[in-house]
Amino acid sequence: MEFMTGERKRTDISVAELLSGRLDGEQVTMRGMVHIIRDMGEVSFLILRKAEGLVQCVCSEAVFQQNPCKEEAAIEVTGIVHQEQRAPGGYEIRLESIRIFSEPTEALPVPVNKWKMNTSLEAKLQYRTVSLRNPKERAKFRIQEGIVRGFRDYLHREGFTEIHTPKLVAKNAEGGANVFKLEYFHHPAALAQSPQFYKQMMVGVFDRVFEVAPVFRAEKHNTKRHLNEYTSMDFEMGYIDGYEDIMQMETGFLQYTMELLKTEYAKELEMLQVELPDVSRIPSVPFAKAKELVAEKYNRQIRNPHDLEPEEEQLIGRYFKEEYGADFVFVTEYPSKKRPFYAMDDPKDPSVTLSFDLLFRGMEITTGGQRIHEYPMLREKMEKRGMTEDGMDAYLRAFKDGMPPHGGLGIGLERLTMKLLGEDNVRETTLFPRDLSRLEP
Amino acid sequence: MEFMTGERKRTDISVAELLSGRLDGEQVTMRGMVHIIRDMGEVSFLILRKAEGLVQCVCSEAVFQQNPCKEEAAIEVTGIVHQEQRAPGGYEIRLESIRIFSEPTEALPVPVNKWKMNTSLEAKLQYRTVSLRNPKERAKFRIQEGIVRGFRDYLHREGFTEIHTPKLVAKNAEGGANVFKLEYFHHPAALAQSPQFYKQMMVGVFDRVFEVAPVFRAEKHNTKRHLNEYTSMDFEMGYIDGYEDIMQMETGFLQYTMELLKTEYAKELEMLQVELPDVSRIPSVPFAKAKELVAEKYNRQIRNPHDLEPEEEQLIGRYFKEEYGADFVFVTEYPSKKRPFYAMDDPKDPSVTLSFDLLFRGMEITTGGQRIHEYPMLREKMEKRGMTEDGMDAYLRAFKDGMPPHGGLGIGLERLTMKLLGEDNVRETTLFPRDLSRLEP
Repeated sequence: MEFMTGERKRTDISVAELLSGRLDGEQVTMRGMVHIIRDMGEVSFLILRKAEGLVQCVCSEAVFQQNPCKEEAAIEVTGIVHQEQRAPGGYEIRLESIRIFSEPTEALPVPVNKWKMNTSLEAKLQYRTVSLRNPKERAKFRIQEGIVRGFRDYLHREGFTEIHTPKLVAKNAEGGANVFKLEYFHHPAALAQSPQFYKQMMVGVFDRVFEVAPVFRAEKHNTKRHLNEYTSMDFEMGYIDGYEDIMQMETGFLQYTMELLKTEYAKELEMLQVELPDVSRIPSVPFAKAKELVAEKYNRQIRNPHDLEPEEEQLIGRYFKEEYGADFVFVTEYPSKKRPFYAMDDPKDPSVTLSFDLLFRGMEITTGGQRIHEYPMLREKMEKRGMTEDGMDAYLRAFKDGMPPHGGLGIGLERLTMKLLGEDNVRETTLFPRDLSRLEP
Repeated sequence: MEFMTGERKRTDISVAELLSGRLDGEQVTMRGMVHIIRDMGEVSFLILRKAEGLVQCVCSEAVFQQNPCKEEAAIEVTGIVHQEQRAPGGYEIRLESIRIFSEPTEALPVPVNKWKMNTSLEAKLQYRTVSLRNPKERAKFRIQEGIVRGFRDYLHREGFTEIHTPKLVAKNAEGGANVFKLEYFHHPAALAQSPQFYKQMMVGVFDRVFEVAPVFRAEKHNTKRHLNEYTSMDFEMGYIDGYEDIMQMETGFLQYTMELLKTEYAKELEMLQVELPDVSRIPSVPFAKAKELVAEKYNRQIRNPHDLEPEEEQLIGRYFKEEYGADFVFVTEYPSKKRPFYAMDDPKDPSVTLSFDLLFRGMEITTGGQRIHEYPMLREKMEKRGMTEDGMDAYLRAFKDGMPPHGGLGIGLERLTMKLLGEDNVRETTLFPRDLSRLEP
């Protein structure tokens, strides 16, 4: 009988092993894709692309003629490690042989081996599986991975439990028209717009919960900042003293994550020339006050006192950058009429809620706040808004059975990545974006 | 201007702080839900339930009369820490006052504070938000969290990149009838049955990728092991020598995860009396051989030579338990006709594939294997099966542009949890199950 023991016999080496210097002069084998071939006449430089980075291989005419291969072929090279100052990382491989696993059968649709592809977003998205092979394109999603790791690791340390809530639902938390509908075994169903109801209910079980998962919005927007499916990083925490606890927790997450990126994603940050924002302190300003400040400083009339226009968000971002050097700003106390029924109103002024948005470089990346936790108060607010209990049995049941005071937030992963990387279209930082005209690839 | 610094002023203490012994004799404040009240006449024991566990509070008649509260109220208690051998963890709090955040407004539908609830699965699912408050029910999902952490942490160490692929798709990877369909801005769309196509395409970008995300199956099964929405743990790795590399990686994940559970989830394992399986080595047996072995040993006729019946899976599990003490067994070389088109056929015998299932205690929890990576071979197999390229442009494009040899697998999280915990219905280990008759809560 054969047994698996968890140990994989490896014949090929990693980039880290190559650059360690321990293999200088030795014969090694490495696998990767042919990023570029530079024919210099007597020798060719063959740059191998691996997940970890690029490796310079030197190939004599004789070896190359025996093993001709094209750019984007998947190959295995064997050769001798050689210290070479001009090679990236200080080591190159002088090839003895090449083994080809697969070769492209058509011309590449986008120039993936150019440092700057100079390709339209449209073309990059159409040929997504190839355009992402470009090291700079790929680096964006490595950084995105780092953000998600930061979110989970930080919350885990803070005693949060990870949950997985259903995306197929009978009725949607936030209600409204922007819902994708479908038939579920002859019953009407919808795709969850957020895990809002579920994460709240789970505060009664785990005290603190989080989830990173897709959410679905059937919004007919076609803007640079909206997607119809995106990854939402949500948390909900119990026994808070106020919504400030939620903002502190988000600040802590950002601090932890910027540190993680600095430590473990330095190569990608440098490649994309990203300057990490200062998150040691994040200013917090009430909604009405923020409107006044920018109206005054930038000589702009307040048109809609109940909501922030995108231009106003930008100006608030600009104001706090200019006045406090801040890239982030919490805008608090949003008007009650613009927030969902479960938002807790300020007992001192029920026209505003104990809630907030977080703006990052002038764009909303988070909505959060304290929720109502007492059943009578929840019922009262629902009645005031003319809502029925229809389809909300389980949600209301949790409150009938007692609930801790709690609050939470949702962060749009792709949008946070976009603002961090200085991109101006959220599709640039979405692996496979879904919008009004895009359901493929 | 107010600033958030990431520091939260805390007035209440954690269970770990209480049990540290450093607070003996001091006044403390703690928050949680009232799990049980045991009225002993002159004193009452009030057991506080927190995410971390239960805490014994002692309450005099006078204090309780001043602050009457019900079971499942969310409260804050203030009192003096007292060493008490009979209390769980060796410390109790002698209460001076109770502050009530919220109280249940109706009788509890299920007895959450009983050690064994003795409640039907049907009732537990109907009143999910309350039944999960039971410490044993809750513990199942803490262990589930540990499994997901193990999966991610292990793969991260092994150089995998986490990706987020779309769940709204134009055409489904595996095809077939078991697809939820919906309308996406006047275009036909479907919910992804698996991230198969996307994770394969991303091997050309990141070499190794993984994703933990919901998948959707419109199967009309109503069994104890099927769900219509579940959490799939998927990975795909490039530059493999064969499908054995995938099995070794899965074995490594299981070893890492069992160790993580033993270290960080000991309390929950004890509470549920879970004995962790030995995963130091996992036997691997070819499909045809496995059929023969159980036919012979258990005197059972082979009815269908191309597939495993559930009863056969059970017998294979029993065989390897009896013969090798193994809880897991890899069954390899599945017949080609039962595997999808992208599965790599064995060059020595094209009627079988270089693929495997992993059985855990007699039930399939993983399907995996090596995939075809060369475009001509992929086209040939598609043609042989009479498939068109319709809707597969992006997938095929990746192969036209060169692809590493690769393979991967998918693990059903809820089913793995079920088998690990010795449950016999996958709904027991699903937070909010979706089945033929269940779309709520």
